[in-house]
Amino acid sequence: MQTLTIWTNVKLSDEAMNRLIAGLGPHRLVRSAMLNESNLAGGGADPAMESAQIAFGQPDVEQVKRSATLRWVQLSSAGYARYDRDEIRAAMKSRAAMLTTASGVYAEPCAQHLLAMMLALARRLPESWQSQHASHEWAYLGRRDRSRLLGDDAVLMLGYGAIARRLTELLVPFQMKKLWALRRTPRGDEPVEIIGEADLAGVLGEADHVVNILPEAPKTRNMVDRQFLNRMKRGARFYNIGRGATVDQPALIEALDSGQLDAAYLDVTDPEPLPPEHPLWTTRNCWITPHTAGGHEREPQRLVDHFLDNLAEFQQNEPLRDRVI
Amino acid sequence: MQTLTIWTNVKLSDEAMNRLIAGLGPHRLVRSAMLNESNLAGGGADPAMESAQIAFGQPDVEQVKRSATLRWVQLSSAGYARYDRDEIRAAMKSRAAMLTTASGVYAEPCAQHLLAMMLALARRLPESWQSQHASHEWAYLGRRDRSRLLGDDAVLMLGYGAIARRLTELLVPFQMKKLWALRRTPRGDEPVEIIGEADLAGVLGEADHVVNILPEAPKTRNMVDRQFLNRMKRGARFYNIGRGATVDQPALIEALDSGQLDAAYLDVTDPEPLPPEHPLWTTRNCWITPHTAGGHEREPQRLVDHFLDNLAEFQQNEPLRDRVI
Repeated sequence: MQTLTIWTNVKLSDEAMNRLIAGLGPHRLVRSAMLNESNLAGGGADPAMESAQIAFGQPDVEQVKRSATLRWVQLSSAGYARYDRDEIRAAMKSRAAMLTTASGVYAEPCAQHLLAMMLALARRLPESWQSQHASHEWAYLGRRDRSRLLGDDAVLMLGYGAIARRLTELLVPFQMKKLWALRRTPRGDEPVEIIGEADLAGVLGEADHVVNILPEAPKTRNMVDRQFLNRMKRGARFYNIGRGATVDQPALIEALDSGQLDAAYLDVTDPEPLPPEHPLWTTRNCWITPHTAGGHEREPQRLVDHFLDNLAEFQQNEPLRDRVI
Repeated sequence: MQTLTIWTNVKLSDEAMNRLIAGLGPHRLVRSAMLNESNLAGGGADPAMESAQIAFGQPDVEQVKRSATLRWVQLSSAGYARYDRDEIRAAMKSRAAMLTTASGVYAEPCAQHLLAMMLALARRLPESWQSQHASHEWAYLGRRDRSRLLGDDAVLMLGYGAIARRLTELLVPFQMKKLWALRRTPRGDEPVEIIGEADLAGVLGEADHVVNILPEAPKTRNMVDRQFLNRMKRGARFYNIGRGATVDQPALIEALDSGQLDAAYLDVTDPEPLPPEHPLWTTRNCWITPHTAGGHEREPQRLVDHFLDNLAEFQQNEPLRDRVI
């Protein structure tokens, strides 16, 4: 077996790093001195990556493009917008190099996070906790009357990848009134009704929940704009765990202020971190989690397991999981 | 068909009242002048109920006991602690009168509320919303690392009636590590492992979530006491949507303060409303909803439908749903 050089800039707990090292067999691990605090940010070019055949983490885009040795890049994120460019695809294809994401690692926490946000809003949990801390008010009658059951509602998902598929599974026992998903390239095996962009205007007025799981790309930037929000059913709820740049945030604030939307739940914003003075923090019924949807206590271990599973496939020339280039 | 006199003190929306009247056929409805704001509180004796064969709502316990005409009481609540006394049972049985609860109406919202609370804690939503309002802090790293996946956990339910059964269904796609339920009289058809009180000490140390759905009764009062809480796994989470009196609240506050419990979610307290100066409001990681678990926008309609379904059975001498006496 050929000894491979594997570069990584993923910041791992000791436990996860030991798991990685134990699983590498004869291969050589090169740890970047520039560790990545967040799986979302790109690092700069790293001389330590020069001779690597495999990169695990968030390698510098330009370095990936010009590398003569890299054969496989395993990202530590589900998103790959920085690498999703024609010249990167062309450069990687020219040397038969592959790019895989960690989307399999993030489907479960992101889907659970989405359901948590949907249920919390249906059951008016943020209001209860706000009044718990503000006034100690036992607001029994009014809040009961405005609590909801999820199964009475129709859900539109924007995007239908691993997260949406898992959310669909979690929603099965609720027997939702309707589930649609917007997907540019349907595969035909989706357990929900797939719609295209041309159908969007018709469906938006019927959805009680619009769940945005879109990646950042030129086509998705500002897709949820003023017109989109105005076409939504009055009093509907909007969720974003995709990327902040897919939403026109001033238009979202208007829609919340006017009551066109009942509430928004955002796990992603533009920019991140959201500056303390940003109006989204204090917009009525806008609830924010700081890009925590994909996180969980054992995320480092699961990232390592995902990488090692793919490494085994790589060595046997088998198809890699979550491959995008 | 005999014309029956049906007394009610349920406070219904106009829509729900019209639905009730439309469904009564030849029967006579007597509406109490003392309408019941909350389905949990008992009303006083009502002369208007004197000649009724059926009572729908929360009739006065003593009046139920001594009534010579009542043949069926349909409660508007899932709980029936006020009526669960030997002399009431004896009096009702002596004239072949029946007591039914509305537990079928409340299973769905209560189970959804429980899952909402379990997921919110796993995904650290209350912390995010607290810091959103207090500091506008983008606490990305620390909060991600402490977020959890529900499927990794073991759940112990105290009580296994309609709510627990529905919660079990909602949890199916999560593939929980383990589900137990404490049930005094197992039926043998439960899809979870049923334990008795003798097994409790052994199981408590393994459960990550203890979900209390117990009714109030002499046997359940203060059941969750200091010893119970100390036997729980350190860092576990405790939920109560049963009745507040089943918990030793000072002992619960101690367990939260010491970190023995990671968090408590309470939909019920003792007393209710919880007075503004009560220490539970400000206990660390104690999250309170004001008895809203059973509520939902269409609760009055569903209560009416449940009553009318049972009325049809009553007229045909068929078994009533949710009968307890």
